[in-house]
Amino acid sequence: MFKTKIIGTGSVIPDIIITNEDFLSHEFYDENQKKLDVSGEVIVRKFKSITGIEERKYAQQGLNTSDLATEAALKAIADSGIDPETLDHIIVAHNFGNIVNQSIQSDAVPSLAARVKHALKIRNPKCVAYDMLFGCPGWVQAFIQADCFFKAGVGTRALVIGAETLSRVTDPHDRDSMIFSDGAGACVIEFVDSDSGLLNHCTLSHSMEELDYIYFGASYKPDSCPNHRYIKMKGRKVYEYALKQVPLAIKDCIDDSKIGIENIKKIFIHQANEKMDEAIVRDLFKLYNREVPEKIMPMCIHKFGNSSVATVPTLYDMVLRNQIKEHNVAKGDAIVFASVGAGMNINAFVYVV
Amino acid sequence: MFKTKIIGTGSVIPDIIITNEDFLSHEFYDENQKKLDVSGEVIVRKFKSITGIEERKYAQQGLNTSDLATEAALKAIADSGIDPETLDHIIVAHNFGNIVNQSIQSDAVPSLAARVKHALKIRNPKCVAYDMLFGCPGWVQAFIQADCFFKAGVGTRALVIGAETLSRVTDPHDRDSMIFSDGAGACVIEFVDSDSGLLNHCTLSHSMEELDYIYFGASYKPDSCPNHRYIKMKGRKVYEYALKQVPLAIKDCIDDSKIGIENIKKIFIHQANEKMDEAIVRDLFKLYNREVPEKIMPMCIHKFGNSSVATVPTLYDMVLRNQIKEHNVAKGDAIVFASVGAGMNINAFVYVV
Repeated sequence: MFKTKIIGTGSVIPDIIITNEDFLSHEFYDENQKKLDVSGEVIVRKFKSITGIEERKYAQQGLNTSDLATEAALKAIADSGIDPETLDHIIVAHNFGNIVNQSIQSDAVPSLAARVKHALKIRNPKCVAYDMLFGCPGWVQAFIQADCFFKAGVGTRALVIGAETLSRVTDPHDRDSMIFSDGAGACVIEFVDSDSGLLNHCTLSHSMEELDYIYFGASYKPDSCPNHRYIKMKGRKVYEYALKQVPLAIKDCIDDSKIGIENIKKIFIHQANEKMDEAIVRDLFKLYNREVPEKIMPMCIHKFGNSSVATVPTLYDMVLRNQIKEHNVAKGDAIVFASVGAGMNINAFVYVV
Repeated sequence: MFKTKIIGTGSVIPDIIITNEDFLSHEFYDENQKKLDVSGEVIVRKFKSITGIEERKYAQQGLNTSDLATEAALKAIADSGIDPETLDHIIVAHNFGNIVNQSIQSDAVPSLAARVKHALKIRNPKCVAYDMLFGCPGWVQAFIQADCFFKAGVGTRALVIGAETLSRVTDPHDRDSMIFSDGAGACVIEFVDSDSGLLNHCTLSHSMEELDYIYFGASYKPDSCPNHRYIKMKGRKVYEYALKQVPLAIKDCIDDSKIGIENIKKIFIHQANEKMDEAIVRDLFKLYNREVPEKIMPMCIHKFGNSSVATVPTLYDMVLRNQIKEHNVAKGDAIVFASVGAGMNINAFVYVV
């Protein structure tokens, strides 16, 4: 049976290291524009204990989201060994486009995918390049879309990229700004006759009361310009939503795959928040009346923060390169990719390495 | 054979009418920031003779792109008679997101598709809502994507929307600002066993020297803020590109459909510029050594301008409603949808009504 297989991976970790201590001098306000009445030390300590984040990486000012996307793409293509002219699709998942130095405008005209294609010097006009916006689950969804194109007979090779520079849309007066980071991850995927590859996928969109759990809004600082907006999160709502919906969604996906939970070797989950990710995986196994197996969930959030669409492909690339301590995957392993984010959207797929 | 069929259409023409005369007092500069040394009357007269545009429509300040998208969606759903809870996909094609009053920031978090889903009060979590960016050909491409999802077995019903408020990204000092307008068009489409529906499609992306033919750049006015960018076009390059590539692309698509050029009743082409669209169709028929048939190409650019992703679904909706003089389609007619725009991208599909 033909299946979609990953034949090359690449990721980019931007240069600028921002530690938690770099936030100690920030004036933080809550969503009611009330100044937080605790010391920076307490805020940062509590932040780290919940999210697991010690530091995060920001891109140099001169680098845009499409530059990070290109760098990850070049690595994935080199890793795959393919001729880039043979690509049928280039899909870039992002949410904020390029945000140029000193500007607050997002720029996605031409699309970031077109810019990546240009940077890769691909002349083949049948290599179709587009961007898709789906919150943090964008990269997983772009992968699912490419799988659909292949199954519909449209192409057999795709470059699927997640890239974001969230450092350019964070409110310095919001504690949540400490979560977000910059990055890019990419996979070259191919539709081949194989026992391994993508087995099945699922996607959910909840957009009723959940619509504004993650949104673009004004600074928490009083008297800030209402027209300069930043990424904003109703943290408690996101947490409760994720715990209620994500374990069930992943379970449905695993059950549909017929693989059996006992055979799942790793879960590559969107690096949103360590405690939340741990609770999701704990509740997933609870649905099966099982203990959480050791080393089921690799994490890279501690040093990289939450780079939105980039976390899942970056994490997978790092595990393949043995860069995540005590985590590796072997040929034949059944693994799960899963994500949750703005929309609110959830998705997952079961994949045999 | 199962095919993708349009079962409902809707479009929105915004309220504010801007005539060519409204631009008479503008100070226009060229791309070298040199003031145009001709009267407003001459500029406007020449503009109209090339583009065909007499007036264009802008959305009221309080309305965003997602509001226009919702209004078009509501009309398309009402026209189709379906229960919106039965939709499997909501795809919104746009390029600039929502641009809120007084702000220059684009906002697409959550995605416009999620906002439309929310406004339509759709609770079904399996109705997946995402945005896609592909320049002006976004709506045609979103339609092609939905067709691929159906063929891959993922869902059977989709709402495909193109919406844009270009009036918020036009440079008042650039003649090309007169081209752009606001609007939204939507179709409900379904995968059904039928002789009619989508027969075949094609898409091309040219992103080498063509990458910046349409881009986001600073005002043409000297000493403008370089960080406040607007939609910009290298008009001559776009024209030459379109004439070279679009007729060939449409011909390939028609030939692959096995329908035969003599059986094509209408070509619904992106309303970019009247002279350019006429030249594309003329050159298409020249490739077949044929005269251009009468009434092959309905146009709505004269009163509506170029609303990017919205022009094709708006034009089709208006023809179905007999709102374009001397143009109509009947059951069994073979027609072509085609577009060209930023990327640069070209796409087309052959469809039997």
